[in-house]
Amino acid sequence: MPNLPSSVDIFEEGPREGFQIEKGPISTARKIEFIDAVARTGLKHIITVSFVNPKLVPGMADAEAVVAGLTMQPGVTYTGLWLNEQGLHRAIATGRLAIFGSLSASTSPRFLKRNQNRTPEEHLAAQDSILEVYKAKNIPIDRAIIAAAFGSNFDGDVTEGEVVALVQQLVDQANRHDLRLKSVVLADTMAWGTPLAVKRTVGAVQDRFPELDIVLHLHDTRGMGIANAFAGLEMGVSQFDSSVAGLGGCPFAGHAGAAGNVCTEDLVFMCHEMGVETGVDLEQLIDCARLAEDVVGHPLPGSVMRGGSLNKLRESLTHAA
Amino acid sequence: MPNLPSSVDIFEEGPREGFQIEKGPISTARKIEFIDAVARTGLKHIITVSFVNPKLVPGMADAEAVVAGLTMQPGVTYTGLWLNEQGLHRAIATGRLAIFGSLSASTSPRFLKRNQNRTPEEHLAAQDSILEVYKAKNIPIDRAIIAAAFGSNFDGDVTEGEVVALVQQLVDQANRHDLRLKSVVLADTMAWGTPLAVKRTVGAVQDRFPELDIVLHLHDTRGMGIANAFAGLEMGVSQFDSSVAGLGGCPFAGHAGAAGNVCTEDLVFMCHEMGVETGVDLEQLIDCARLAEDVVGHPLPGSVMRGGSLNKLRESLTHAA
Repeated sequence: MPNLPSSVDIFEEGPREGFQIEKGPISTARKIEFIDAVARTGLKHIITVSFVNPKLVPGMADAEAVVAGLTMQPGVTYTGLWLNEQGLHRAIATGRLAIFGSLSASTSPRFLKRNQNRTPEEHLAAQDSILEVYKAKNIPIDRAIIAAAFGSNFDGDVTEGEVVALVQQLVDQANRHDLRLKSVVLADTMAWGTPLAVKRTVGAVQDRFPELDIVLHLHDTRGMGIANAFAGLEMGVSQFDSSVAGLGGCPFAGHAGAAGNVCTEDLVFMCHEMGVETGVDLEQLIDCARLAEDVVGHPLPGSVMRGGSLNKLRESLTHAA
Repeated sequence: MPNLPSSVDIFEEGPREGFQIEKGPISTARKIEFIDAVARTGLKHIITVSFVNPKLVPGMADAEAVVAGLTMQPGVTYTGLWLNEQGLHRAIATGRLAIFGSLSASTSPRFLKRNQNRTPEEHLAAQDSILEVYKAKNIPIDRAIIAAAFGSNFDGDVTEGEVVALVQQLVDQANRHDLRLKSVVLADTMAWGTPLAVKRTVGAVQDRFPELDIVLHLHDTRGMGIANAFAGLEMGVSQFDSSVAGLGGCPFAGHAGAAGNVCTEDLVFMCHEMGVETGVDLEQLIDCARLAEDVVGHPLPGSVMRGGSLNKLRESLTHAA
């Protein structure tokens, strides 16, 4: 039988990935209501907003107002996302977010060009300048993110060796700035991953970088999200990004089939049923998933919010007996 | 890395499980159109209809007409389901179906009472009489089906030991009639299974009954279907029941959250991407999933039909290069 971790840390991506892709408009008040509800479930890490160009991502134009309106729960780390120094300064200026730096690389040059209009070399160089800002401000560098770690729609398949080489590149870059990386995020950005690929790639990164924690960021476009998470658990991975209700893309709303992250409550359900602790109250989380559907105004792909938890059934059986 | 089987056999349950639960009405012609399309994908086993009381299951009232209208593909085994001798005789009378007998037991006495109005003892006794019919007609007994093998909404959790004891009961019953069982179906009827439970239960049954093939029948109500299938593959299981598009229950249509079987094209996608052969043309199968949505008139839960196959993306990259 597999040796699963005794507990996992979950990084809730729903507000950021969800509210930036939804057609909306979703009011600032409802975003705050949702994030506040999520923060009461026991989830300890919430990526609340992204500080990006409001002309390009209108759903995030109210990022500062959302952060300002939150009722901060003790013990919960609230963070945000940015892609450049301007975004970083906006995040710092809120005065309410935990600020962690990150480095990233993409397996797919064409994806990088399309998304950030940079070559891989230009991307590395651009990071050198923000790394100096992190260093000057004593901001810890938390994550090395490998985008499209399992393949991409623009450059196709990816080998474990390519992923290991990119992680090495980011470790080297951090070292050049006297910075230490803590974790590497293997992001299945375009949902090319399978459980077998997860096992192979995680194994290769673990072998080469035993000092780095591995985080899995798994999109569910082809229905492999939970299976890929299980494969990660079997490899001892204990950190996962996920989205309440599967926020972040809706296969039923014509987003060309791209789905959000693996669904948080489905992941929590699987973990609990297998004896892996998450610290999360699943029933409250299911309520949040239903709230998410209400906020966005259409069905979201989560399963457990429809099927219901087993503990609730177990309780009703105990009462009936 | 896991030692996956080199190929799997898939038993397509979509027409039976889907068309009996859909509110419909769905015309006989459209059912035939769908089954004929499925039969051209390379799927080799199709459970086409059930021969049950048309007053209780109006969607199956045209079972004979559906079977009579099929354009039978060579190499495809078409079967049906029945729950008693009357149903068996109807199936035989079509003259077009492969007739396989089966035995069943449920881990959940309350579920059995509710579904078939029998105690476990009455259920065993009732099977003795149909076993004599199978024997007299030289009908092979293919499957020993364990319903609710991972838990039930009416009696709660189930241990591997209970499952092994029930399989033994069916093996003994078959032996008393000088019949040999070929396979045991572990049915996650009410979606209580997790990948860990699949590994434990499959392992326990393999250890005790190495001569029996194991078939997994996995409902996806809590989003664990594909992960459970992967866990089965890791244990060497090479036979799966599944439903095109996830037919058999629709979480978006108010069926109290109960979902159908694991989705065939998602399963085939995972297998192919991991090097496990299925004999199925995935693109044709995706077309069938879209046809299924058209026939039932609402979205179905499959993912790959929305996200698209990777081979199609790979091809487009090759052409672009």
